[in-house]
Amino acid sequence: MITVIAGGVGAARMLRALLQVVDASEVTAIVNVGDDLILHGLHISPDLDTVTYTLADAINPDTGWGLVNESWQSRTMLEQYGGVSWFGLGDRDLGTHLYRTQRLHEGADLATVTAEITAAWNLGLTVLPATCDSLRTIVTLATDDAAGSNTPILAAGTEISFQEYFVQRHHSVPISNVRFEGAEDSMPAPGVLDAIESANLIVIAPSNPLVSIAPVLAVPGIRDALVRRRNNVIAVSPIIAGAALKGPADRMLAELGHDASVLGVAALYNEFAGTLVIDAADDSLKSAVESFGLNCIVTETIMSKPGVSESLARTVLSGATT
Amino acid sequence: MITVIAGGVGAARMLRALLQVVDASEVTAIVNVGDDLILHGLHISPDLDTVTYTLADAINPDTGWGLVNESWQSRTMLEQYGGVSWFGLGDRDLGTHLYRTQRLHEGADLATVTAEITAAWNLGLTVLPATCDSLRTIVTLATDDAAGSNTPILAAGTEISFQEYFVQRHHSVPISNVRFEGAEDSMPAPGVLDAIESANLIVIAPSNPLVSIAPVLAVPGIRDALVRRRNNVIAVSPIIAGAALKGPADRMLAELGHDASVLGVAALYNEFAGTLVIDAADDSLKSAVESFGLNCIVTETIMSKPGVSESLARTVLSGATT
Repeated sequence: MITVIAGGVGAARMLRALLQVVDASEVTAIVNVGDDLILHGLHISPDLDTVTYTLADAINPDTGWGLVNESWQSRTMLEQYGGVSWFGLGDRDLGTHLYRTQRLHEGADLATVTAEITAAWNLGLTVLPATCDSLRTIVTLATDDAAGSNTPILAAGTEISFQEYFVQRHHSVPISNVRFEGAEDSMPAPGVLDAIESANLIVIAPSNPLVSIAPVLAVPGIRDALVRRRNNVIAVSPIIAGAALKGPADRMLAELGHDASVLGVAALYNEFAGTLVIDAADDSLKSAVESFGLNCIVTETIMSKPGVSESLARTVLSGATT
Repeated sequence: MITVIAGGVGAARMLRALLQVVDASEVTAIVNVGDDLILHGLHISPDLDTVTYTLADAINPDTGWGLVNESWQSRTMLEQYGGVSWFGLGDRDLGTHLYRTQRLHEGADLATVTAEITAAWNLGLTVLPATCDSLRTIVTLATDDAAGSNTPILAAGTEISFQEYFVQRHHSVPISNVRFEGAEDSMPAPGVLDAIESANLIVIAPSNPLVSIAPVLAVPGIRDALVRRRNNVIAVSPIIAGAALKGPADRMLAELGHDASVLGVAALYNEFAGTLVIDAADDSLKSAVESFGLNCIVTETIMSKPGVSESLARTVLSGATT
């Protein structure tokens, strides 16, 4: 049994790679919900949906989020009203949010609804939200910023939601802090702790350490459970040669006082991970990683390269027995 | 100034007729919200939307509700999940509900949001919800009923929401009662009482008396305001030769102990209306209508017939001076 701690795009690719070499019934993904938002009254879970759509081969290949064969009639109408339209909701994608919101209103918890959604897509793996409770990633602006010419200037020090940072501002503004609202009062979703305790191997996917992995670990009990399984926890660095493949992880690490390199990742993960997989481009940092008390595996990690995703998956699985 | 008490389809046609002969800036519609529902977390206002879309020449001509040039991608996805899909929400129409819900969540009241929506459609008239508060039409089943083979049988005496009756059951089940949940605690929306008090003429549109007009009158203050203006209130009967042009008004009248004829309408309206317009088909009932203390005007009222809508509008306007 393999359990994967997951954010969005990078985790979805890691999961897809793993499913090439292990049966889906062996795999559980514990997915970040810090990015979730309520918009237009709808409960939107971007990371859960990116994982689901990717593994269903239904992700929009042009954007990396949302559904393939998408249309935008509702958004066009929303724009006619001058409504909030910076968060792109396609017509097909809306079907998912309508369903999730209706079921939550009926009293189902997010784990139940997620199971229903993944079953409808015929996914064989188990997908769990880290928590069914409200946990929201909030970032602090490091400088004055407006999201666009028609939006107010927010002063440095203002807190905004993750999606206001990530989508509305295209993660282009520096930040000075990240916190997880509601984390203290949250509980792991049913099955989460058991999936960590009973797994043969726990994989920290190559997701943003600060806003994809950290909010999962902020749910009381999850980090401690990982610490207890440290020898069986293998992390894949999302940072390659000092840069993130996608997204702002490198800049965020630097802005928040971490090394924007595999060493920054090692420092953040060494308490609960026994092994860190780094890219061949960072071979020279192997012994520095090991100095954090981590096993270090050096291999190709860019999953878009031919053949790499399957070999990376096999390397990660070998981490179970290192 | 003309104020129209309005339900959905019949009222929209009456308003469209009036706008052929008076300037839109002279017209205020006070619209039923008893049909409103929260579905998938979205606030849906069917009568407000039918009035808006009709007057914007954007109503779906095939259905009489929803928007023209509609697509159904979100609904298809919702059905894939096994979600609630009996209430048809097209992709374009969803844009309206997303906007309304977002604005209500932001703290705007329904009157404000309605003004924004009608402005976006460049409607010149004023459209007001009867109330910004929650007022819901609830009907009682007169017989055991299931909404379909996959839904539970509900016992006679069970209360269901208006849309569960009207849309999910195609208004095909007999009912034994209608009530308006929340009406007692509701207040007229801003502008409603003034629109009644200051109008030269108040028109009761040919809408269902029991579930379109009655819920407007159930808002404390509105019925009394109409009673005070009785001499300037003119109603158009939605019943012609004992039948409703559209919908279940005739059956509902009979089921709830009223005459399913213009006489039933006269009995329901004579307290607050001074004049009732009935169709030429009911000419023989003119003196019986007058016996309720009502002026009675007999004319063509089927607005789909060529030339009738404009002549009916002129007849109604003449009611201001009878």
